[in-house]
Amino acid sequence: MTRTATLAELATLVGGELHGDGTRTLSGVAPLDVAQEGEISWLSDLRFAPKLKKTQASALIVPPEITDPPRDAIICKKVDHALAQVMTHFAPPVVHPPQGIDETARIAPGAKIGDNVAIGPYVVIEQGAVVGDGTILHTGVYIGAEAHVGANCTLWPHVVVRERCTLGDRVIIHAQSVIGADGFGYYLHEGRHTRVPHIGGVIIEDDVEIGACSCVDRSKTGNTVIKQGAKIDNLVQVAHNVVVGANAVLCAQVGVAGSARLGSYVLLGGHVGIRDNIELGDGVQVAACSCVPQDVAAGAKVAGLPAIEFRQYLRESASLRKLPEVIAHLRELTKRVEQLESPTDHSPRR
Amino acid sequence: MTRTATLAELATLVGGELHGDGTRTLSGVAPLDVAQEGEISWLSDLRFAPKLKKTQASALIVPPEITDPPRDAIICKKVDHALAQVMTHFAPPVVHPPQGIDETARIAPGAKIGDNVAIGPYVVIEQGAVVGDGTILHTGVYIGAEAHVGANCTLWPHVVVRERCTLGDRVIIHAQSVIGADGFGYYLHEGRHTRVPHIGGVIIEDDVEIGACSCVDRSKTGNTVIKQGAKIDNLVQVAHNVVVGANAVLCAQVGVAGSARLGSYVLLGGHVGIRDNIELGDGVQVAACSCVPQDVAAGAKVAGLPAIEFRQYLRESASLRKLPEVIAHLRELTKRVEQLESPTDHSPRR
Amino acid sequence: MTRTATLAELATLVGGELHGDGTRTLSGVAPLDVAQEGEISWLSDLRFAPKLKKTQASALIVPPEITDPPRDAIICKKVDHALAQVMTHFAPPVVHPPQGIDETARIAPGAKIGDNVAIGPYVVIEQGAVVGDGTILHTGVYIGAEAHVGANCTLWPHVVVRERCTLGDRVIIHAQSVIGADGFGYYLHEGRHTRVPHIGGVIIEDDVEIGACSCVDRSKTGNTVIKQGAKIDNLVQVAHNVVVGANAVLCAQVGVAGSARLGSYVLLGGHVGIRDNIELGDGVQVAACSCVPQDVAAGAKVAGLPAIEFRQYLRESASLRKLPEVIAHLRELTKRVEQLESPTDHSPRR
Repeated sequence: MTRTATLAELATLVGGELHGDGTRTLSGVAPLDVAQEGEISWLSDLRFAPKLKKTQASALIVPPEITDPPRDAIICKKVDHALAQVMTHFAPPVVHPPQGIDETARIAPGAKIGDNVAIGPYVVIEQGAVVGDGTILHTGVYIGAEAHVGANCTLWPHVVVRERCTLGDRVIIHAQSVIGADGFGYYLHEGRHTRVPHIGGVIIEDDVEIGACSCVDRSKTGNTVIKQGAKIDNLVQVAHNVVVGANAVLCAQVGVAGSARLGSYVLLGGHVGIRDNIELGDGVQVAACSCVPQDVAAGAKVAGLPAIEFRQYLRESASLRKLPEVIAHLRELTKRVEQLESPTDHSPRR
Repeated sequence: MTRTATLAELATLVGGELHGDGTRTLSGVAPLDVAQEGEISWLSDLRFAPKLKKTQASALIVPPEITDPPRDAIICKKVDHALAQVMTHFAPPVVHPPQGIDETARIAPGAKIGDNVAIGPYVVIEQGAVVGDGTILHTGVYIGAEAHVGANCTLWPHVVVRERCTLGDRVIIHAQSVIGADGFGYYLHEGRHTRVPHIGGVIIEDDVEIGACSCVDRSKTGNTVIKQGAKIDNLVQVAHNVVVGANAVLCAQVGVAGSARLGSYVLLGGHVGIRDNIELGDGVQVAACSCVPQDVAAGAKVAGLPAIEFRQYLRESASLRKLPEVIAHLRELTKRVEQLESPTDHSPRR
Repeated sequence: MTRTATLAELATLVGGELHGDGTRTLSGVAPLDVAQEGEISWLSDLRFAPKLKKTQASALIVPPEITDPPRDAIICKKVDHALAQVMTHFAPPVVHPPQGIDETARIAPGAKIGDNVAIGPYVVIEQGAVVGDGTILHTGVYIGAEAHVGANCTLWPHVVVRERCTLGDRVIIHAQSVIGADGFGYYLHEGRHTRVPHIGGVIIEDDVEIGACSCVDRSKTGNTVIKQGAKIDNLVQVAHNVVVGANAVLCAQVGVAGSARLGSYVLLGGHVGIRDNIELGDGVQVAACSCVPQDVAAGAKVAGLPAIEFRQYLRESASLRKLPEVIAHLRELTKRVEQLESPTDHSPRR
């Protein structure tokens, strides 16, 4: 990282209040524990305030609660937001294919390619497909027939977008993900699993980001839909006809079965499984490794296998920890009751 | 979708009984809730019969139980099968590479390529490999040395079939899946994990379908085998030396550990884990998100972590819901017994 | 398999003691159950000793406990190690791209390519990247700008190594895996999930092996680290800023959330989930399908959802099996106590 900035420049960049020497030159950003002289660090959680005194960082981004920071600092209300801007400033440039269309890219006649695109080597774009202005397609990306990719999207190497799927603007899809593979649906006919045609597609709305090696299957009819601003991590499965709500967050290895509907701002922890055909209301949160077998009302927080209301889950987990001794206790109590029931002697303790 | 058909034509196509106006022209197929005028819909589950009256569909596919359908209709015993045929009729064409071998495909001398193949750009086929008649290889597919791909297979973009693996006829493999990567086996030698050579292969029999981003590892010796007609979803792991039975169904994100053996028609729900070296008999069903640690007899249905017999699982789940109050109750009962045991006073209720 | 060897040659190869006819020619290796005449088999677990008499194998590799093997044999202390050497001997050659750089490989000016590399078709290597001596890059591999790949690595088809990531020597990465995709981190800004820049990288040390379709995300700052000799299976997620200890083993479909730290020789069974920011000490073992929500001390063995100490997990599982009857028993006992409490009659059994 060779980009530098003065503290005053960074304060202006993030709209924060400068505290101390604005002429100090900074050359990088790092966490409190590992920052070196010449770097700026940050405090986003007040619990870690004691670390401020020990850090080697030359400058700090701190919230207003830190009234007297022990280093030159930028004081601002939204440290996370300021930090993202500072990190973006110091970020080394990311190399994309150069603007234009690589000579090895295979673009079918009739495909419509926007302005200022960057289409890398060995990309294949089938007939009738559309690629919007400013979109970046890395090496080996495949855009199927009549698929639409919006403007200013970034598709990393080998991403596959199958025929008739639609991506909005500013969509990011990481390497190897597959959009629009056939949904997994069969019916049994004369003893054989026979494919249900999946003639629908996938709609991915604006500002969605999808991780690496994830799959969003095409629908039977209509569309599988990932709504505006949803964020999906790596190795996630979104089955046919699912609707993922706006700004939902699906962590790595989540699986959402066919026709499930997730509301806005739903948050699914890693490894969560969602049953087919159920509905999770807006803002539902599911703890990692849970399996949700039925509808969950908006705003609820659930956990477990099967997933239940979160506090009940905690109570049951705590109770389960005691179960072996509960059983021993019950056995002992039973003996005491037997003794009480004995006609000759009701009182065991003499 | 611009293909059309009259209702009479569709009735003939599916071998159903025409009810009403056979000359009606239809232009698409959609579920009852969303079908529009000019489209045909269907009823595959009698529970949804009330929807028949509200649908905007112009025609219906219904089972014989619906003796007086409220729209022009095709009456047939197997609605699922009829629907698949109708959907296939209305399905827009899927674009594959054109017949022939793309000029950028890299085919090693000595590889044998059948007739009427469609081999897309940037495909690599290594020495001694065989590709059967009518098979479609999309862009970037890799066929390793001496691998055999049968007739009329479809391999979607970037599928990797490693050396000496064998695919039967009509096998479909979706984008990014990997057949024949080295099995995950090591032994500890002088403190280091040392690879066990996996010199076997993979055999995938006829009519198997494998989803996107799935992995079937090669065996140590002999072969990992996916038997005839098995269907495997996305992001599934099938480890070295596993046998997946004929017509088995493995939903998304299932993991089957080394040398496990699954019988015919085994059904594994999403996210299921199967321990290494165990056997699941024919027709075993495992509920989603379960983890199976031991053999399961043919026909059994299991669930849970660890998986147990399904009704027992339901009983335990219901019991667990009560556990916190059970513990409270036991505590209270213990007090009552203590009171009964007290020599001075046996009766708590006065 | 057409390579052959005499038993004496194999005994020399593995440093074992020859027992019987050293001139016998062998042409392959297979397990006791399936080995045919002319093949050598092995016994690595004394429990299977009874199989020795029934095998069709012509020769055996056995441990010293088998003092009088029923076939010509090699006796050696470390059967696993000997077996690996014998299997390597009989292994058919694996076809890699030929030495040199394929004419279709796209290597940016300024990338440094070592000696004796084998770079296959359609590989893309960006500016400033380094590829070490003897490294093999299969078709479609992508090496991002300023990434470093060490010597004698093997990257299978379509592996993606993003910008500024570093691989040590002898690293193996199977097909479709993605190293250095952006970490999954957002903060909520004006109702939208806003990306946290991930300006760090990934360091993969010497002798690491990573399976197919696995993901190791780049860090926010600093590096995600996979230490020397760790082995990672297929479809595994390693999130941003994670540290995987030396010689750790992560089975298929494991997910490790952001900033978790795994010690040396940690062993994670299939489908395990590890929470973000926790630490697992050296040698921790986690049973398959478990979810670990908190730190685990070195050497501990845990299981369950949430994961707890292994023996406690077994006790609880056994107790849970009894829970329905425990509840019935408690109900019955309560009635007996009520009867005892009844002022008119303390004794239920007459």
